[in-house]
Amino acid sequence: MLGITLNRQSAAPLKRQLYAQLKDAVTSGMLKSGEAMLSTRELSRDLGVSRNTVGEAYDMLIAEGYLLSRQGAPTRVAEGLRLEDRASGAPVKARPVQAVKFSFRTGRPDLRQFPRKLWLQAMRRSSENLAAEYYGYTGPQGLDALREEIAGWLFRTRGLNAAAEDIFITAGATHALNLACVVLGLSGRSILMEDPCHSGMLQTFRDRSCRIVPVPVDGHGMQTERLDGAPDIAAVYVTPSHQFPLGGILSAPRRAALIRFARENDAYIIEDDYDSEFRYGGAPVSPLVAADPLRVIYVGTFSKVLFPALRIGYAVVPRPLQKRWRVLRTHDDVQNPIFEQAALAEFMRARQLDSHIRKMRKLYGARRAVLLEALRASFGGAAALGDAAGLHLAVHFPGMIIDESFAKRCRAAGIDVTPVEAHCIDKGRHGSELLLGYGHLEPDEIRAAVLALREFMDLDK
Amino acid sequence: MLGITLNRQSAAPLKRQLYAQLKDAVTSGMLKSGEAMLSTRELSRDLGVSRNTVGEAYDMLIAEGYLLSRQGAPTRVAEGLRLEDRASGAPVKARPVQAVKFSFRTGRPDLRQFPRKLWLQAMRRSSENLAAEYYGYTGPQGLDALREEIAGWLFRTRGLNAAAEDIFITAGATHALNLACVVLGLSGRSILMEDPCHSGMLQTFRDRSCRIVPVPVDGHGMQTERLDGAPDIAAVYVTPSHQFPLGGILSAPRRAALIRFARENDAYIIEDDYDSEFRYGGAPVSPLVAADPLRVIYVGTFSKVLFPALRIGYAVVPRPLQKRWRVLRTHDDVQNPIFEQAALAEFMRARQLDSHIRKMRKLYGARRAVLLEALRASFGGAAALGDAAGLHLAVHFPGMIIDESFAKRCRAAGIDVTPVEAHCIDKGRHGSELLLGYGHLEPDEIRAAVLALREFMDLDK
Repeated sequence: MLGITLNRQSAAPLKRQLYAQLKDAVTSGMLKSGEAMLSTRELSRDLGVSRNTVGEAYDMLIAEGYLLSRQGAPTRVAEGLRLEDRASGAPVKARPVQAVKFSFRTGRPDLRQFPRKLWLQAMRRSSENLAAEYYGYTGPQGLDALREEIAGWLFRTRGLNAAAEDIFITAGATHALNLACVVLGLSGRSILMEDPCHSGMLQTFRDRSCRIVPVPVDGHGMQTERLDGAPDIAAVYVTPSHQFPLGGILSAPRRAALIRFARENDAYIIEDDYDSEFRYGGAPVSPLVAADPLRVIYVGTFSKVLFPALRIGYAVVPRPLQKRWRVLRTHDDVQNPIFEQAALAEFMRARQLDSHIRKMRKLYGARRAVLLEALRASFGGAAALGDAAGLHLAVHFPGMIIDESFAKRCRAAGIDVTPVEAHCIDKGRHGSELLLGYGHLEPDEIRAAVLALREFMDLDK
Repeated sequence: MLGITLNRQSAAPLKRQLYAQLKDAVTSGMLKSGEAMLSTRELSRDLGVSRNTVGEAYDMLIAEGYLLSRQGAPTRVAEGLRLEDRASGAPVKARPVQAVKFSFRTGRPDLRQFPRKLWLQAMRRSSENLAAEYYGYTGPQGLDALREEIAGWLFRTRGLNAAAEDIFITAGATHALNLACVVLGLSGRSILMEDPCHSGMLQTFRDRSCRIVPVPVDGHGMQTERLDGAPDIAAVYVTPSHQFPLGGILSAPRRAALIRFARENDAYIIEDDYDSEFRYGGAPVSPLVAADPLRVIYVGTFSKVLFPALRIGYAVVPRPLQKRWRVLRTHDDVQNPIFEQAALAEFMRARQLDSHIRKMRKLYGARRAVLLEALRASFGGAAALGDAAGLHLAVHFPGMIIDESFAKRCRAAGIDVTPVEAHCIDKGRHGSELLLGYGHLEPDEIRAAVLALREFMDLDK
């Protein structure tokens, strides 16, 4: 209880000082309702005063109702005594969330379907066997067992032959991009990005002082024909297996062109494979990194296939960059915490990740079909863009103006949507396109949301 | 099993292609010994081929001993078939650790004493009650319940009156410093640092392109008399409650001088309170932030009081900086994972953190006494520096040269020590001082390590 400072030179007796300070602590809320007080023995030892002094101060507070004492139980703080005073100004709170009736937000897996019981079992199994040394620093590259599992899984699901030694665990994809920025020394240099691209990732590169060079996107991903020699190009950021947000797959000739371009400019490619697990048909897409492992940093995350609060992603890092990656990670945030890593390794070992993905792929695929059908019924002329994959759909509404102002009005009507324009670097080229996230919605919710959108658009004209 | 790509135009029958590719996967180790194969039904569906095709390929592999089949169990990969080929060069491995017989490393809590059972119970209790929504994005500031607990704890242990709204959870102290760098815009600007200071933290600021301005340290912390107007000073980094590594407490007049200096230069103070929990006597030290909450970012971590692999720290952030902190954290690594946060909140709520610290303070205090006694017995003239606190001791050995070369020879003899010089910015001023971490060592280990050090020094002359 170091919150208490007693002044032995003061005229006020120690028990009086102690009483006053404890009372302040209760009314200011620093001692909380129901909180157990230290015993008189403990507090007297901490403060270096007699046990009597503490006992008398407690007795006064009990008499006045600040503390509650019960036979055989610790003395506790009474309820409802906190006075509100925020003299230093109101805290800056996050904006209150508007009432959302229909949420088409993107990048949201259906958490209701996540097998929490199985996950908690994996967590229990893995944590109970964790020796004391795993509570210490376990290294910036991540848990060996987890990297082994990821290597096997990348092979099973993507045909990617990456060794566990080349895999670096991160705190998610965004974090991996940050580390890539530093390892590649991107600050102040140029990075080519798809336009549109994920606005959050764009901001990550901007926060790292990268110069952003947009390259337009069509139905087959980044238009590599339009790559040209911006000055000092250090890297290209792409989402080749499922372009975010438009959904195209980077075509084979463009893949070749991109790698040629990177070689000619001595630039690295950052390949973000953010949700390639969820493909509902068609040939599997082989990652770019397989074509040139020395020039591509391959980034993935478990936020979408498992759940966002897990905060585990990974990067396959070219060998010449690995030592620097380890050192920089150590000075960035040291390492991932241990328990999620161990639990995920166990979850993967037991093949529960595979069966969860299998189940969700079926479920999301069905939801996509429901959304397409509902759109057809309500909006005859609307056209879905991109490949059959992922957790959201990009839709073109001919003749409509879909911009930030549209989205604002739409949200005010309780429907949360994202215009493609929100993800554009150069504005004005995707002004009739809307993103509809469906992964987290049940079929009935999808149908109701599309009807609400139709109704809103009719009234909004 | 997307690792398999079948070519329907090829002259080779599909079952043959499948057989060959699965065989490669086994010998390359991508399919691991003992791993369960998909069922023929599952794999045929994945590949879009008949179940027969898969069955025949499996049969060939079983016949040749690549796969093992047993009645009523999944077909598995046989043992010992992996061929080693690392055509892309040997992986860059972390350096092999030298055999350490006596480790005086600093910053290592005694993990053997950590109540793992109680922790796992807290983790179980907290995770079992976690609703589905907590598996989603829960916000860049951290779990409410945890911030409430930290607020109460800061008050109980340091007398610090910080509201939960002003507390920001981070992935440890290093991570908090990184965020502070960005929030304060330190890149390219000057930061004053204690000299010596923690070399890891120094590197963190260097990685963020800060200009480092050293300020010498004595037995009472940073020599504020020697602060002067380096150009463009944006921040001062200090460890006022227990200077790292020399152990002094920043004196009251220097605290006042430091805050005056910061105000005059419109600079922020970053206060790192890295192990103030472990004080073995003397008056409690009140944090600097209490004196000027608008000018100080107060940083703490649970790595030392609990365990390093937890990766939870916190910052008390001045209100004008809070919005920016939230946005930047989102684009840095989004948020902390959920399970450690929930477990720590529960561990604190049950007052297990308090009792753990109480127990460890007693234990570490006793070990410190053992180390002092052993040093007295073996090295009459050696003098301990700093305040009675923390997990390590800084010791002055009159007349000795203690530099990187000394440490190297010492480590070669199996004794891991750190010269104070390793943490110096301007070298050459602390060349007779050694850091001896004792927190993780039992009394007998301490005595044996001191004897070994004495013996090494005698031979090394």
